[in-house]
Amino acid sequence: MGTIYGVGLGPGDPDLMSVRADRLLRGAKHVAYFRKPGRTGQARKIVNGMIRDDAVEFPMEYPVTTEIPVSDPRYNALLAEFYEGCTARLKELADQGEDVVVLCEGDPFFYGSFMHLYSRLRDAVPIEVVPAITGMSGAWTASGDPITWGDDILTVLMGTLPEEVLADRMARTDALVVMKIGRNIDKVKRALKTAGLFDRAWIVEYAQMPNQTVRKLSDACTEVTPYFSIIIVHGQGRRP
Amino acid sequence: MGTIYGVGLGPGDPDLMSVRADRLLRGAKHVAYFRKPGRTGQARKIVNGMIRDDAVEFPMEYPVTTEIPVSDPRYNALLAEFYEGCTARLKELADQGEDVVVLCEGDPFFYGSFMHLYSRLRDAVPIEVVPAITGMSGAWTASGDPITWGDDILTVLMGTLPEEVLADRMARTDALVVMKIGRNIDKVKRALKTAGLFDRAWIVEYAQMPNQTVRKLSDACTEVTPYFSIIIVHGQGRRP
Repeated sequence: MGTIYGVGLGPGDPDLMSVRADRLLRGAKHVAYFRKPGRTGQARKIVNGMIRDDAVEFPMEYPVTTEIPVSDPRYNALLAEFYEGCTARLKELADQGEDVVVLCEGDPFFYGSFMHLYSRLRDAVPIEVVPAITGMSGAWTASGDPITWGDDILTVLMGTLPEEVLADRMARTDALVVMKIGRNIDKVKRALKTAGLFDRAWIVEYAQMPNQTVRKLSDACTEVTPYFSIIIVHGQGRRP
Repeated sequence: MGTIYGVGLGPGDPDLMSVRADRLLRGAKHVAYFRKPGRTGQARKIVNGMIRDDAVEFPMEYPVTTEIPVSDPRYNALLAEFYEGCTARLKELADQGEDVVVLCEGDPFFYGSFMHLYSRLRDAVPIEVVPAITGMSGAWTASGDPITWGDDILTVLMGTLPEEVLADRMARTDALVVMKIGRNIDKVKRALKTAGLFDRAWIVEYAQMPNQTVRKLSDACTEVTPYFSIIIVHGQGRRP
């Protein structure tokens, strides 16, 4: 039987992939990745020029869910059906003895889509996960300042959470990372102000990619930011 | 002028270093690293067989502080003097036009000692930081289960914090990482019980190293655990 590899690509710079990821990618005969319909997909873009010319590609195209609220049962049903379909194809390949590399942006086990394939495949086929540098690590490195010192508490929040939850958790941490921002930017800004952190917040767009930008959030007048932007507040802990 | 490179080594497996870290290490003429007096040092061990035979090594030996409480001003003074000494030597090398690779366990900007050199050198010499896979990412990958799903909140706590702070923050998160455990293990266990998370907690020792162990914390009868053990509680968020 073949093995399914969930390979973390890291924040986006191929030079920041692990040696293991690099080797698996360059040798892969089958390469699978998620993408939105009609797009190349960020994961596929990152490995441009790295994978074999004769690699067989399996793009897994997310169903269009923009019209359905996340809380609607149809949302979950549509995604479940999608993941089942992807899983069936991957299992088929493994049953034929083929190894498949599944490209994962960031770290596969940290808020990734691959986890939905992993949980369905883990008891059925050999499956290995290659960890990677997280997008948030790419972001705090890009900011040029350490994220946590000494005994600092770090909290990671999704911009999709309710404003009062965001503000409450922000007020109880030393260092902060906010992800999944996009259209939640105004809500996140209000929560940062409530928690007294707005003036210490930085926003990093496209961390570790050629178009990377790092700005103080208070200087970033734009109201629109990519979904994969990351907001960080650096800890101020013990520093001899 | 030479450049000082703070190179993250990741959780401990050389195969999980970044391609950039691997290249910098193998080419380095000067290699600096922290260690306890009389020890090889974990960072130096990880790169065994990777660095050049003729590399000039600069072991930076921590002063012995075991008898001084962290809250004592002498503790900070002793460490500050130590970091000043290391910094002076690194600056001297850079002034002579030499590049130096400073080995950093895990990710340099995430609770690392390198940050104390970085903050002193950043305005004086060219300095570059290479991010890496964090130890906690190595630990949750080793656990075989994703750490965060959907909108899960992740909180990272140091075992050195007071028990009531630990218990309070544990009760307000979905997914949890506890680091710097060692002699704080009993306190951390009590806090996990107060927060109702004890039965879901795992302890990972030596993540991604040959002697790695992964156990449910409730099954780990040992009262002694290495300082670099990591406790994790997996999030239970949305999973279509």
